[in-house]
Amino acid sequence: MTTMPQFAYGPKIDLDGVPDLYEGDHEVVPYTPPQTGIDNLGIRSVDEFRVPALGDRPIVVEFRGWVRVVRSQPTTPDWKTTEVYTNLVQMCMKGECDELGEITVRLQREILSTGCINTPYDGEDLDSDTPDKACRMAVACEFDVPKLGKKLFNKEPVELTIDEVRSIPPAGNPGRGQIYRRLPLYDRAHPDGRPVAYLTSLNFSMGVYLPQRQVEELAAA
Amino acid sequence: MTTMPQFAYGPKIDLDGVPDLYEGDHEVVPYTPPQTGIDNLGIRSVDEFRVPALGDRPIVVEFRGWVRVVRSQPTTPDWKTTEVYTNLVQMCMKGECDELGEITVRLQREILSTGCINTPYDGEDLDSDTPDKACRMAVACEFDVPKLGKKLFNKEPVELTIDEVRSIPPAGNPGRGQIYRRLPLYDRAHPDGRPVAYLTSLNFSMGVYLPQRQVEELAAA
Repeated sequence: MTTMPQFAYGPKIDLDGVPDLYEGDHEVVPYTPPQTGIDNLGIRSVDEFRVPALGDRPIVVEFRGWVRVVRSQPTTPDWKTTEVYTNLVQMCMKGECDELGEITVRLQREILSTGCINTPYDGEDLDSDTPDKACRMAVACEFDVPKLGKKLFNKEPVELTIDEVRSIPPAGNPGRGQIYRRLPLYDRAHPDGRPVAYLTSLNFSMGVYLPQRQVEELAAA
Repeated sequence: MTTMPQFAYGPKIDLDGVPDLYEGDHEVVPYTPPQTGIDNLGIRSVDEFRVPALGDRPIVVEFRGWVRVVRSQPTTPDWKTTEVYTNLVQMCMKGECDELGEITVRLQREILSTGCINTPYDGEDLDSDTPDKACRMAVACEFDVPKLGKKLFNKEPVELTIDEVRSIPPAGNPGRGQIYRRLPLYDRAHPDGRPVAYLTSLNFSMGVYLPQRQVEELAAA
């Protein structure tokens, strides 16, 4: 991250002194707010795109990769009341399909992607001491699509949500992008122009902690 | 609009030479893409807020007011294929409730609120020459709440959507804010801090063209 974000979707979390956590470094304990840390986790995502120049048909791509998420110190030590703020500071996912070729997804450097884990107002188990919590993250990403000759990026955030969060991080949980009909994607070469593609659905699952060597390889790629 | 937006959620539409339209200026014809114009329309919205400092209970406020929306020239003269881009360039809505007192909603000047009307990919009548169209608008707004001593603003856009659009503008149509659980609101006095309130639901309806005098009164207020 050599470029400082000029805009943030939410609070920035100080990285100073916060440890990077890899496979074996952190025991995930259910219903227990963890100390601040930087989670290096696997991720899979199945995204559906529509590209008007390619005829508007749905194009489904499966991505696999890695996310690096900074977690704040929990606001309280109590699972029920605690809030944990997050910043997504690095991401690299790769996917491939016939229509679009190889695609690499990374973060936009100009915008800080941020999120929060807290207890939903409309949960079903609000009388419990261990309610399910909800996780949301607003993401500014960039899809590098060499076959199209374009880098596609979003201006409205991709809102990733995970429900039924029973441990932090919610490793292994499924989640989805809250996309109503379509989210416009723009062309880096013509950033002020009209959308050139749309993201029409997104379903993902958070993976577990990755080995440090694997993360270093992904970060260098 | 004395401050130029520094960020836009989508394409900016040139205002030069585009006429302001008031009551009686424009006949809304179903299934017919209209010439570019600036629509001065009434609006009503029922919003639900949660404010942690006030105990997190749902607070429902009904707002009434005015929006000024620039519409682009349609991309084609054909209802089925046309796309119309929009910028929300002014808004003033007022509401009141016991918990929050009087609230005035305006646009954030730093961010341009933008939208689009087009034919949805997942519509039910895609074989028709007159399919229902869908309207979406990403809005950056500010809630002035003197009783709280705060101006609240969003960093992730409020996504307003209208379905079953059969004329442009979709005057009289109901719509909703696509809010998943909660949309964080921040305090202008501490813009980098944690959220101080949440918008948890929003249902609105677009009104009809307003008389010019009424708009001038609202714009001056």
